[in-house]
Amino acid sequence: MTPNEPNKRNGGAMDVALTHRTIRAFQEAAVPEEDVRRLLEVARMTASSVGMQASSILRITDPKQKRRLSEVSGQPYVATAPELWVFLVDQHRNAKVLKEKGADGALALDMDFFFQSFTDACLMAQNVNLCAESLGYGAVFLGSLLNDPGRTIEILQLPQGTFPVLGLGFGRPDQDPQMKPRMPMQLRVFTNEYPQEDEPLLPRLTEYDETMQTYYDLRNANQRVDSFTDQVVARYSAGLPERKAILSWIQRQGFGVPHSAEQ
Amino acid sequence: MTPNEPNKRNGGAMDVALTHRTIRAFQEAAVPEEDVRRLLEVARMTASSVGMQASSILRITDPKQKRRLSEVSGQPYVATAPELWVFLVDQHRNAKVLKEKGADGALALDMDFFFQSFTDACLMAQNVNLCAESLGYGAVFLGSLLNDPGRTIEILQLPQGTFPVLGLGFGRPDQDPQMKPRMPMQLRVFTNEYPQEDEPLLPRLTEYDETMQTYYDLRNANQRVDSFTDQVVARYSAGLPERKAILSWIQRQGFGVPHSAEQ
Repeated sequence: MTPNEPNKRNGGAMDVALTHRTIRAFQEAAVPEEDVRRLLEVARMTASSVGMQASSILRITDPKQKRRLSEVSGQPYVATAPELWVFLVDQHRNAKVLKEKGADGALALDMDFFFQSFTDACLMAQNVNLCAESLGYGAVFLGSLLNDPGRTIEILQLPQGTFPVLGLGFGRPDQDPQMKPRMPMQLRVFTNEYPQEDEPLLPRLTEYDETMQTYYDLRNANQRVDSFTDQVVARYSAGLPERKAILSWIQRQGFGVPHSAEQ
Repeated sequence: MTPNEPNKRNGGAMDVALTHRTIRAFQEAAVPEEDVRRLLEVARMTASSVGMQASSILRITDPKQKRRLSEVSGQPYVATAPELWVFLVDQHRNAKVLKEKGADGALALDMDFFFQSFTDACLMAQNVNLCAESLGYGAVFLGSLLNDPGRTIEILQLPQGTFPVLGLGFGRPDQDPQMKPRMPMQLRVFTNEYPQEDEPLLPRLTEYDETMQTYYDLRNANQRVDSFTDQVVARYSAGLPERKAILSWIQRQGFGVPHSAEQ
């Protein structure tokens, strides 16, 4: 295993993107503050919906906070990632601007603006992810922070108008996983319109199913993984009840209420 | 103006991200199919929630389709972008896999999975955006395709289980805009918990408001733009009624219904 040396490379974006792998084991070494600062600048320079910049980052440095979030996600590597960032919907800030300018702060809590913010937070997360990889770091997205939205909101003390979207853990890689096979391009890219067709999908996924079974997922103690279509059945059948309540948590954070009351 | 030469560079991810600018005017030249193919591969290699790959891309090549989408967005450059890609929530595909495997296809239509797909679509869009920029292309995100979700769904013939998230137009740049000023980092990045504080925001935005007024937005015929806080008031006050109905369109595409009926 020869993890890339941070600061010794500035990888071409294409090369980095085309060799993307999720990293879940990290060396203990801290990420230098200079790299943290540059990656925060990457986040700040990311495009945002009509320039409203309605997303924020919580950088989690307190080991107790990391442990709490690790419990929500059920993933031990949340606690051991040298850097742990949580990307947020943040309409709290612009709601405050509206109020201080004498306008109605509740305007910012419309579901339309929630989705704009949610999009912005995701764009920031991917931009940071690719740039961290280009500096030789390994990273893991943490959608699992939403396994219990209410608990994550409580841990992070998120006020009305904010919502946790996605976490990102990163640091120097301490594993060297295979690239994960992807389903065929022709199943994911279409031209002009979504294809209206009734042909079965399974025959077109047979080869991918076989390829997936040759992939060793380091998450599972180096055991082979299920075929993709078996994974689909397992994953969608095993929904977490707290995750399913995501929309009610979005509403409890203040979103949608002012306008839905009008409808 | 010296637009970058596509294929003549493979920009370091950090350098590209830190000099990001939105490009809304394009040269007529088509993007070579080889670059299209590589950027689709970037999309395919993007991380996805628990590997479910529940997002898709519609590549719009038909000028009539581009014109229709341009009408929805209200932006002429949607019709003139050499490449126009629409990133989709796509649970239609995995719902079909579930059904063909004898499981319940409606499992994939839970709001939890909608948000996972929405996140995946955004991650793909930003990955493609940065990589396109690294090849010397200029790009513009098109959140405006959601100005009228029902019309966009109709134009793209989107079936149940899919939803339009974000468009991306790109091509060789035909303008050379300033980098857009961003609000101070300390207003967007916090440590460990969201700060609980009552101090007014406007004094901390005064300098940024002044900087923003020195920025010439090429969208507005080279006129200076409003201060940021004035933009906030204008933008949030001018919501489009069709946009505000986004949640009901998500539900009309089939999401949330099976489980919300149980709650």
